[in-house]
Amino acid sequence: MPTLVLIRHGQSAWNLENRFTGWWDVRVTEKGAAEAAAAGELLKAKGYDFDVAFTSVQTRAIQTLNIVLEKMDRLWLPVTKDWHLNERHYGGLTGLDKAETAAKYGDEQVHVWRRSFDTPPPPMEAGSPFDLSNDRRYAGVKVPATESLKDTIARVLPYWEAVIVPELKAGKRVVISAHGNSLRALVKHLSGISDADIPNLEIPTGQPLVYELDEALKPRARFYLKDA
Amino acid sequence: MPTLVLIRHGQSAWNLENRFTGWWDVRVTEKGAAEAAAAGELLKAKGYDFDVAFTSVQTRAIQTLNIVLEKMDRLWLPVTKDWHLNERHYGGLTGLDKAETAAKYGDEQVHVWRRSFDTPPPPMEAGSPFDLSNDRRYAGVKVPATESLKDTIARVLPYWEAVIVPELKAGKRVVISAHGNSLRALVKHLSGISDADIPNLEIPTGQPLVYELDEALKPRARFYLKDA
Repeated sequence: MPTLVLIRHGQSAWNLENRFTGWWDVRVTEKGAAEAAAAGELLKAKGYDFDVAFTSVQTRAIQTLNIVLEKMDRLWLPVTKDWHLNERHYGGLTGLDKAETAAKYGDEQVHVWRRSFDTPPPPMEAGSPFDLSNDRRYAGVKVPATESLKDTIARVLPYWEAVIVPELKAGKRVVISAHGNSLRALVKHLSGISDADIPNLEIPTGQPLVYELDEALKPRARFYLKDA
Repeated sequence: MPTLVLIRHGQSAWNLENRFTGWWDVRVTEKGAAEAAAAGELLKAKGYDFDVAFTSVQTRAIQTLNIVLEKMDRLWLPVTKDWHLNERHYGGLTGLDKAETAAKYGDEQVHVWRRSFDTPPPPMEAGSPFDLSNDRRYAGVKVPATESLKDTIARVLPYWEAVIVPELKAGKRVVISAHGNSLRALVKHLSGISDADIPNLEIPTGQPLVYELDEALKPRARFYLKDA
């Protein structure tokens, strides 16, 4: 029975400051590292194990994965890092905190951007200090100027189908360390959550989300792994 | 001009205890982690950068690489982990400290095993607690019972030729985090060091060893990166 575990990265510096992060690359805080360590210890204590690991090319997700694997004595597992698993790109909101965003655009508009399925925030402005178009990690990638959740899903799912599904179908146990919205994409797909409901699904940081799948990769069970 | 940087993992728990480690999997100490952090900071300060990274499947080398990449803001680089870059397998000496080994075999014999090019230590005994034949990280690998330095070189170099050389020839900047003897294999090959001399070449832990190579991958320069 294929097993898939999803982990949202531990608290990042900008989670803490309540700033829109998106593709901007920040690190986990001490608390975030501790969340990751607890996740790894819990997975090990509960007898979970993996064959392959996937993560984004964003430091906070890679740090989280490395800490989880180290706690499980599984640093030697093959790890694939791919931008398709990145967080949603928040466009022109990147770098703004809640108060700044509300002052600039109004609470109601911010709520729409946060909670709409298909309304993207305004695109990142040319010359923004948060523009990553020329970051060499994205060489050959068309870096988006902004993304709705729908846009994020539209680049996560083809990667899932092409790269991760074959591993699960080959019987591999898979762990994915990623982000709130790239994981929403997977949960929406696997659990059949509606466009209206998925923006409101909160995936907590550092909590292993276990999918027990059947051979067609339909979920037989989905639960957060927690201390007894 | 292709650039290659070799890093021997930071101090491990068994380096500290003076025990033969080989393929046994131990972690870096706090001092070892600090050595790795200093190496990463030094590489960044000196303007070094990489495109791809290689390491063994042993925790101490992977930890070292992860710390180096984190300090360089390069955790997102692709990392290939392969057993061919593992430390020399110390056979029946694995787990023994200097005093135990000398008591069991005599100082002179131990000196031969440490410093001979082609004399392997006695093979690991059946049922040894340090036997890794059934470790799933080595599924499909014929785990050696012991290795001379010559044996180690004989499995490092084909991997070098098949996997790492093509990256360098494609212009990639390569970092390898590995072990005293797997790195001796590469230094012997690149710098043309004799069978007699290579066992005595000491590669310090956590010191980036830089090779500037020409297009045929002949060294134009080789030096340890150090603080000015």
